Amino acid sequence: MRRILLVLAAAAAVVVAVAGAEPVLRQVTDVPTAVSWGVSDADALFCDSWRLSVETANAGPWRTVPARCGASVRAYMEGERYASDSAVAAAESLAFAAQALASGEGGAMPAWVFDVDETLLSNAPYYAVSGWGLQEFNETSFDAWVDVAKAPALPSSLKLYNELQGLGFHIILLTGRSELQRNATEDNLLFAGYNSWEKLILRRISDIGKTAVQYKSERRAAMEAEGFKILGNSGDQWSDLIGLPMATRSFKLPNPMYFIS
Amino acid sequence: MRRILLVLAAAAAVVVAVAGAEPVLRQVTDVPTAVSWGVSDADALFCDSWRLSVETANAGPWRTVPARCGASVRAYMEGERYASDSAVAAAESLAFAAQALASGEGGAMPAWVFDVDETLLSNAPYYAVSGWGLQEFNETSFDAWVDVAKAPALPSSLKLYNELQGLGFHIILLTGRSELQRNATEDNLLFAGYNSWEKLILRRISDIGKTAVQYKSERRAAMEAEGFKILGNSGDQWSDLIGLPMATRSFKLPNPMYFIS
Repeated sequence: MRRILLVLAAAAAVVVAVAGAEPVLRQVTDVPTAVSWGVSDADALFCDSWRLSVETANAGPWRTVPARCGASVRAYMEGERYASDSAVAAAESLAFAAQALASGEGGAMPAWVFDVDETLLSNAPYYAVSGWGLQEFNETSFDAWVDVAKAPALPSSLKLYNELQGLGFHIILLTGRSELQRNATEDNLLFAGYNSWEKLILRRISDIGKTAVQYKSERRAAMEAEGFKILGNSGDQWSDLIGLPMATRSFKLPNPMYFIS
Repeated sequence: MRRILLVLAAAAAVVVAVAGAEPVLRQVTDVPTAVSWGVSDADALFCDSWRLSVETANAGPWRTVPARCGASVRAYMEGERYASDSAVAAAESLAFAAQALASGEGGAMPAWVFDVDETLLSNAPYYAVSGWGLQEFNETSFDAWVDVAKAPALPSSLKLYNELQGLGFHIILLTGRSELQRNATEDNLLFAGYNSWEKLILRRISDIGKTAVQYKSERRAAMEAEGFKILGNSGDQWSDLIGLPMATRSFKLPNPMYFIS
């Protein structure tokens, strides 16, 4: 019963934040009933180590959060750790960016690439009502959430974005979202406070079936061919960051909720 | 006063563990006096995030642990988190190794590369009396510690090592230590319980001045030319793992104490 109340409370919180989104969110509340949202000490220790293994890519490909780690992932995402880890990544990004620009590494067209989901925008309100990654990705309900276009900014990413623009970086957004989601994505970015990006690159029909690594590497190569010098790249998946050509420095943002190859 | 007692207690513990090593250890006990070994909540939060940024390579090159994180690094290394993080990395390594071998990926000469320091052997007893990374690397005192040849095994690495040998992997040790340290390194590996490695590769005079990435990549290329298929690579530094050719899968072991480029 307590479990049900918690789920309802989370759903209610999202409905407050995202007026009009109830029909979308209601269909994804079927969290596995075996999940306990209390965290035992043993689970906390294991799940902290599991999260680290995801962040370092030791975990390799995975489909869902381990059942015993649902509560830990939720506590991480809702607590101060996620915000702190994101803020430290942003601070390190800015320190590098300022130094690289000062040393002339960026040439005439210094650029910074950002991924969108869990990098500029947070889908935590969606995952809060869909089991924090315990369930496999549901494209239908996630696409409906994308169309609502009310995902909030990750605060530390918005701050970094504005600081990089202030330094003179060209900001390029490179997302696995589809061209069919261009309008919703632009609306959501503006809603969240992002402005004046140089380009927003989405998957075309010809990109369907490519891995994120292949698709994103090809687009980075195309940007370099256009004359951009990609000094930095921020993403929550290693598939945002690896593959040639790579940015001079890549910054891995935390994401214990899902994996994209 | 309490601070001094703690340092003395740590030194005493090491002397018990490493009989005869007192002359080596006594010279590295000059921990900065400004260090407090208590961890405030704010420092704990920041330092956990800093450690994550080291493990994901977001931090980039660094010379010493931030002053405010000395106590946090010590608590991490001495507590259950370091052991747990290392054990999860080892379990993920073994799961991959078994699956890769079963699928025939390893060919006739499947190999696994291990780094030595903070991978097979733990230098925590040395760092316990030299400030847990708050001070810059002291080659003289570290080399003296290496000559003592009494560093213990990382328990989860020793277990993985034996399991990989049981599966039929060729075990190759690739370390940044010098050929001058071959005897001490072999003695220490045997002392710690490691046996029957295929090769132990150390830096030759011609490798001096190379970065770890360059030196280790060259040696992985040489191993591949000899016919080894490097399925896995375990190391506590990204410089153990990146650079071409890479292993099929690389496993980053935790190390918040020092950085090697």
